[in-house]
Amino acid sequence: MNFTSDNCYGAASEIFEAVLRANQGAIRSYGDDEITTRLNGLFSDVFEHDVAVFPVISGTAANALALSTITSPHGAIVCHAQSHIAVDECGAVEQFTHGAKLLTVDGAHGKLTPQAIEARLAPIQKALVHHAQPAAVSITQATESGTTYRPEEVRAISRAAHAHGMKVHMDGARIANSIAFLGCAPSDITWRSGIDVLSFGATKNGALAAEAVIFFDKNLVGDFEYRRKKSGHLVSKMRFCRRNSKRIWPASLG
Amino acid sequence: MNFTSDNCYGAASEIFEAVLRANQGAIRSYGDDEITTRLNGLFSDVFEHDVAVFPVISGTAANALALSTITSPHGAIVCHAQSHIAVDECGAVEQFTHGAKLLTVDGAHGKLTPQAIEARLAPIQKALVHHAQPAAVSITQATESGTTYRPEEVRAISRAAHAHGMKVHMDGARIANSIAFLGCAPSDITWRSGIDVLSFGATKNGALAAEAVIFFDKNLVGDFEYRRKKSGHLVSKMRFCRRNSKRIWPASLG
Amino acid sequence: MNFTSDNCYGAASEIFEAVLRANQGAIRSYGDDEITTRLNGLFSDVFEHDVAVFPVISGTAANALALSTITSPHGAIVCHAQSHIAVDECGAVEQFTHGAKLLTVDGAHGKLTPQAIEARLAPIQKALVHHAQPAAVSITQATESGTTYRPEEVRAISRAAHAHGMKVHMDGARIANSIAFLGCAPSDITWRSGIDVLSFGATKNGALAAEAVIFFDKNLVGDFEYRRKKSGHLVSKMRFCRRNSKRIWPASLG
Amino acid sequence: MNFTSDNCYGAASEIFEAVLRANQGAIRSYGDDEITTRLNGLFSDVFEHDVAVFPVISGTAANALALSTITSPHGAIVCHAQSHIAVDECGAVEQFTHGAKLLTVDGAHGKLTPQAIEARLAPIQKALVHHAQPAAVSITQATESGTTYRPEEVRAISRAAHAHGMKVHMDGARIANSIAFLGCAPSDITWRSGIDVLSFGATKNGALAAEAVIFFDKNLVGDFEYRRKKSGHLVSKMRFCRRNSKRIWPASLG
Repeated sequence: MNFTSDNCYGAASEIFEAVLRANQGAIRSYGDDEITTRLNGLFSDVFEHDVAVFPVISGTAANALALSTITSPHGAIVCHAQSHIAVDECGAVEQFTHGAKLLTVDGAHGKLTPQAIEARLAPIQKALVHHAQPAAVSITQATESGTTYRPEEVRAISRAAHAHGMKVHMDGARIANSIAFLGCAPSDITWRSGIDVLSFGATKNGALAAEAVIFFDKNLVGDFEYRRKKSGHLVSKMRFCRRNSKRIWPASLG
Repeated sequence: MNFTSDNCYGAASEIFEAVLRANQGAIRSYGDDEITTRLNGLFSDVFEHDVAVFPVISGTAANALALSTITSPHGAIVCHAQSHIAVDECGAVEQFTHGAKLLTVDGAHGKLTPQAIEARLAPIQKALVHHAQPAAVSITQATESGTTYRPEEVRAISRAAHAHGMKVHMDGARIANSIAFLGCAPSDITWRSGIDVLSFGATKNGALAAEAVIFFDKNLVGDFEYRRKKSGHLVSKMRFCRRNSKRIWPASLG
Repeated sequence: MNFTSDNCYGAASEIFEAVLRANQGAIRSYGDDEITTRLNGLFSDVFEHDVAVFPVISGTAANALALSTITSPHGAIVCHAQSHIAVDECGAVEQFTHGAKLLTVDGAHGKLTPQAIEARLAPIQKALVHHAQPAAVSITQATESGTTYRPEEVRAISRAAHAHGMKVHMDGARIANSIAFLGCAPSDITWRSGIDVLSFGATKNGALAAEAVIFFDKNLVGDFEYRRKKSGHLVSKMRFCRRNSKRIWPASLG
Repeated sequence: MNFTSDNCYGAASEIFEAVLRANQGAIRSYGDDEITTRLNGLFSDVFEHDVAVFPVISGTAANALALSTITSPHGAIVCHAQSHIAVDECGAVEQFTHGAKLLTVDGAHGKLTPQAIEARLAPIQKALVHHAQPAAVSITQATESGTTYRPEEVRAISRAAHAHGMKVHMDGARIANSIAFLGCAPSDITWRSGIDVLSFGATKNGALAAEAVIFFDKNLVGDFEYRRKKSGHLVSKMRFCRRNSKRIWPASLG
């Protein structure tokens, strides 16, 4: 890890630029599988890890699809009381999971802590059908309070979650900001700190409606692709949701 | 209202005895409609109000069916952090509502207050699609802490809820205890205090698996009967879930 | 197998009588686990196989819970166009599975055939996310037309289903009639013919509201118990939904 | 109506061009409400009717959102056995409606007829909770067989549907082709023929991932906007899903 490096925002920029380049040539030249392969390759390079990447159209879709893939209908997701999934997504996670529970936790500066997670889980009895069973912890990077989890904070949360058999999701709507702020590598605050699946946000860096779900553990992908299709989030010609006006309209439309 | 009366538990007993009598004759003598009519009549007498009654098999079913009838998938339900629907029903309400949110509130002695409800609703912006919209308040009588809401407490909560256009549900799993404790009429802590729909529990008074959803405002019944059927809670020969061993088996089975 | 035996209806009677006996003593004497153990033992004896049994309150609940346990939201269930699950359950299976598809097939005498199943599956492309993936075949015994599948017919259907990786469900709302008609052992038209999970109906044999989901392959039980709870079908004091009036009411209620 | 006019494909082209123009200026100049107002105005002009328009990202999303808005969980949707919603959307409609049933009908040339609809509805008993209740008819224009419904065919279907209290949805993934083929005005095969809600497809006319749900009866919009948000289909900066590479990237990204 390199906590002193300042190439962090650069790293995020590189992601975008690479996607952009890949995309421009893609429209005529590549089939869906090839683009997917390229996207996986690009993100694998940036994160220094073999990842599975799925572009989607909105942060709500990214979070709800990611969390529903790792949480059964009788599961529970621990998150901050101010988190986007708890407050600003109109119950999308509850709907995509078919009724899982969000267990909200207060915490200073918009952050979860291992202690707060443990306290929230304490009254839940394992394998008791009356209790939604702990399935995932979701943290936001940067948080809704504008703060950033440091890698060691993420690691401590992941350790607590994994000890309960839970997976760890990061809502990275503003992860580029955090990477820039920390001056770390994208890997440092994701898979190297125990993140299993990431909602990677690009929208907030510009006007682009582009988000991606990134699985660091490809065994977790499971039925994600069916979930994406069934929720209407598989786009016919998916090219990371980017369009070039010159090319996308039929000739007759100018 | 009669706060000095001690006939309260008696009132609850009368409900059960009346149901019992109605039921015993019913098996051979009455069709479904007639039993339903009789049940509605019995409960209307006890509650001194024209009610619509639907027997179901479990408290979880009563709560989830009642709340899903008055809460859309993008609705929110304010309840106590210790409430049965929040803690002990494995997300049944989330599932039956197709993804509504439970907004939990802490409060001394297991009770909600108008102030706590207002505080919980404060950050929610009306008619903003990002926010699940306030649809219902659910209180438990007697509470999960063993305390009992007095009629004036229920009225204050109902007033706050109705001011926000929300309906008020009472999880009355132990309502008979509360009626006995308060020495009031069943009507005093229900519709006269603003309750719109009640999960009426009998199970906890004995071994009987019998609960009922009681609508005090019959306009709220809506599609309840379809919801009951679609969730498997319409029993072929519904007789308040009571069975007499001598009669229910075919002659050949003794 | 014994196709000449006439002890079949007797076998069904024995099930009921045994449950009845078990139940009567159970109320005061046994805890939940012990009753479950006894039920499993009773049904295992009758079916000559180690089974997992879960009593529920209605045939709709039995079918919807059984099928949702073996069918993912992106799965498809092949069934007869006249089947109860397709026609008379108000979309309960679609709801419990969170959106799986019923693929209906016409067929003489209310019966599916391997040929009809193959024809229905032919246009579905395996592993294509646009197509709900074949997950289960559901047949009704006796059929909605009043006919009965013979063991060799069930076996042929099961073979076809299993070849596609699908599980086989039998809606046995009237299975006792079929067993009596065929003069076979309960095992002959269930697990010995490839049935993986059975909705065992008792209601239609009498007035008893009692159904059970029986897994012949216990590995399929999965999260059934959470599904039962979350849908409100776990009854506090589950005793095969049978009640004896002398015992179930509190003393004060007579 | 003008069946001889050949300006039909022109009309569809005009839609796109107008959207395109509206969009280009929009990025810096207009807020969300203004763009929505302009889109509504544009489509209202083209359809010669006051419509409510909601852009979405995929045809599956358009169909599933449109149909779930007009169909309750206990509703039924009559559609052709070969329709996209029945065959190629992985059960999206079943999921978005929370378990409604698709009632498929065969028919020559990929078309529904009033007679086929009546026959399919015949066994369904109105107001019987066991039966999913008829809620909508969905037809595809052009059909999956490549044929086109003529206005009088659409009118006959709409009349039959409306007589049963059902709404009429048109999956217009290829409606521009039909308009061109018929040489009619867009209004002639939509609201003037009884269509209540339209999935308007643009994707198939080019590479653009753009679809829209168009309500001809604005009273039907209901909770559509919550459904769109809750399913992740509300995009932060919704501009008919079109992007211009020069503008959408932050300056630093080139």
